Parts: sequence; structure tokens; C-alpha cells
Amino acid sequence: MNLPDSIRNFVDKFSKLPSIGPRQATRLAFHMIGEGKTEIDETIASLEGLKKMSICENCFFVFSPEDNEKLCEICLDKKRNSKIIALVEKETDLISLEKTGKFRGRYFVIGCLAKNEVLNTEQKQRITKLKTTIEKELGGKADEIIIATNPTTYGDFNAAMLSKELKDYTQKITRLGRGIPTGGEIEFADEETLGSALERRI
Amino acid sequence: MNLPDSIRNFVDKFSKLPSIGPRQATRLAFHMIGEGKTEIDETIASLEGLKKMSICENCFFVFSPEDNEKLCEICLDKKRNSKIIALVEKETDLISLEKTGKFRGRYFVIGCLAKNEVLNTEQKQRITKLKTTIEKELGGKADEIIIATNPTTYGDFNAAMLSKELKDYTQKITRLGRGIPTGGEIEFADEETLGSALERRI
Repeated sequence: MNLPDSIRNFVDKFSKLPSIGPRQATRLAFHMIGEGKTEIDETIASLEGLKKMSICENCFFVFSPEDNEKLCEICLDKKRNSKIIALVEKETDLISLEKTGKFRGRYFVIGCLAKNEVLNTEQKQRITKLKTTIEKELGGKADEIIIATNPTTYGDFNAAMLSKELKDYTQKITRLGRGIPTGGEIEFADEETLGSALERRI
Repeated sequence: MNLPDSIRNFVDKFSKLPSIGPRQATRLAFHMIGEGKTEIDETIASLEGLKKMSICENCFFVFSPEDNEKLCEICLDKKRNSKIIALVEKETDLISLEKTGKFRGRYFVIGCLAKNEVLNTEQKQRITKLKTTIEKELGGKADEIIIATNPTTYGDFNAAMLSKELKDYTQKITRLGRGIPTGGEIEFADEETLGSALERRI
């Protein structure tokens, strides 16, 4: 039995989205049809809303533009230190860091990095843009670039690659501290984490 | 930091869909924005397509209606035996059974059953419709109703509940056979499955 064209189109489209497979997409299609037309229209409206968002020309974070603004609120905020840049992979990483309320520098979103330590075309363009901004606005060197990739094997490899790429454009390159997470128990910490916590004891 | 309204709307809508949580919905929002407006429009078009689908008045399967047709292709197919009805929870279960090519009866989609053996309002209405159809078209009794719920604890409980509900409307109530799946190894089969395979040896 073949799926009707409309469902097949939907499945094709949705199963290309991150972490949605063809099975889940098929289930979603039947679910949406069962929910009815009003519900589908509301979902469509929520997608229409996304079309209003822009990507910041400076840091590549997503923002809601007013009056054709090209930069996001964080980049426009004069009170923030533009000489300290936290490089993150994903917008959600930026949001998590921002929620700590402990960082008053700027950000730079590079996009999800591959596991082969190679930047894609888009990411190369973004790095070029970062270098240009540092040259034009910070006189060639930032004070600090925090490479906030995940503390995983691939995150470490990618951080090393990015450090090499950016070392001439900053006084200092740092990464996020490692150790036992708050609320964690020593007994259950893995050796790697516990080792880092010992080395970086405070 | 608060998410912009458009992203929050999107996350609210998408995190209500089955097996999508707020985190995945947020990631999806940023992904879609990054993909650009054309891609968002294509996704919207795929949702618009779903609005063309109808739900069969007889078996509640989803179908693509031509000329205001009220019944699906399976229910309209005169060559199929309308006296044997396979009751399934999900449309995807129907598709899986149909793909075997071994079933020439009709179907009845009840919707995902709860774990408390209680039918919701919609499901009660569907069961009433099934009983009416059996009375009107099959003279009060079907030849066989196959209760094709999953072979899990909850599936078994729900099957028992449905059997009680439908026992006066059919000559025979059956369930799908249980045993070692084709390609499976005896050594790795769990006791329950192996027990069933012994009891129902062929």
C-alpha cells in the first residue's frame, strides 16, 4: 500500500529535519490530520512567524528585527564588552550561556561542527567575517576568545582546530572550565571528569 | 534571556506534537530559520497538503478523497471481505498489516489507547459507529474481529477490554499470533516469547 501523495510530501519534508526520521514524520502526519484543519493552520502560522526572524550580520545569532536592523540586541548593546567573544556552535548554547547572567561579552555562532574537524563553506565565511570584524572594530586582536564547544572528544578536536584558525586574532584563547557539575557526586564522576576537577582545582 | 515571540510560538506549537519536546522544538526553530524562507515555505506547503486529506467515515483511516468521497479505498473495495475486521490502534499499524499482502478483510482504526483501559470520548464514538456498521451492513455480527493491539502488557489489557466491548458483535475474536520473529534466534528470545512460541507451535 502506498501512502497518499500529500502524506508522502509531508514525510519527505519533515524527515529531513534534525532528529526526525521517516517513521516519526509519518506518525506526525497522521497526528496532524487527526487534529484537524484549524490545528494545521495554527502550526502553519507558527512557521510563518519564523520567516520574520533575521540572522545577525555580526554574530550570526537569530533575532527579531525592528526597522530593518541588521544586528541583534546583544551586538547592539553598548554596555557589553565587544573585545571578549564567546564562540558557540548552536544558538541554544548561546542561550544557555546567556541565562547564567555571568557573561558580558559578545557571541559568535559558528553552526554545528562536523566530526572531521573541517569547516563547511558557510562556516568558513562566518570565520572570515569574524576576522574582518576583529580587524575593523578591535584593531586586529580581540582580548579573549572563549571557544565554547562541548567538552567531548569531537568538541576538543574542533576547539583545537578553531584555536589554530583564530590564534593571530586574539590575545588569549580560553575554553569553558571542566569539573564535577554542581550537585554531582564524586563517587559517580567518571575518571576523565574527576581528573579535570583535580587538575583545575579552585 | 527570553526567546523572541515567533520562536516561542513555534516551540509552543511543535512541543505539543507526539515525541517532540521543548528542546527539540527550539532546535527545530533555529534550524528552520537557518534554512531560509524558501525552505520554510516548502514545509508550510507540505502542511497545507495534509488539509486535503479526509478521515474515512467507516474505518477512520486517513485517505485522499476524490469527488467528495466519504469512504477510503479499502472500505470501497468490493473484492475485500467486509465481514472480517482488523481493529488497529494507529494508521501506521494498518499500513504495516496491509504491506504483508496477507489480509483481505477491512480495518477499523480506534486511535492510540490509554494505559488505563479506558476509551476516550472520540474512541467511544468510533466503537459506537463500528457497532452500528456491523448491525446495518453485516446483520448484527461480523465473522471475525482481529484485535491487533501490540503484544505488550498494556496491549493485552486493552485487547481484553475491547473483546468484552465487542463480543456480541462478532462470531469470533482473535489476536495476532505470537512467537519468535522470523530471523530471530531461540537463544536470544525472552521467556515470554519463547513460552508463547511453544504453546502456539505450528
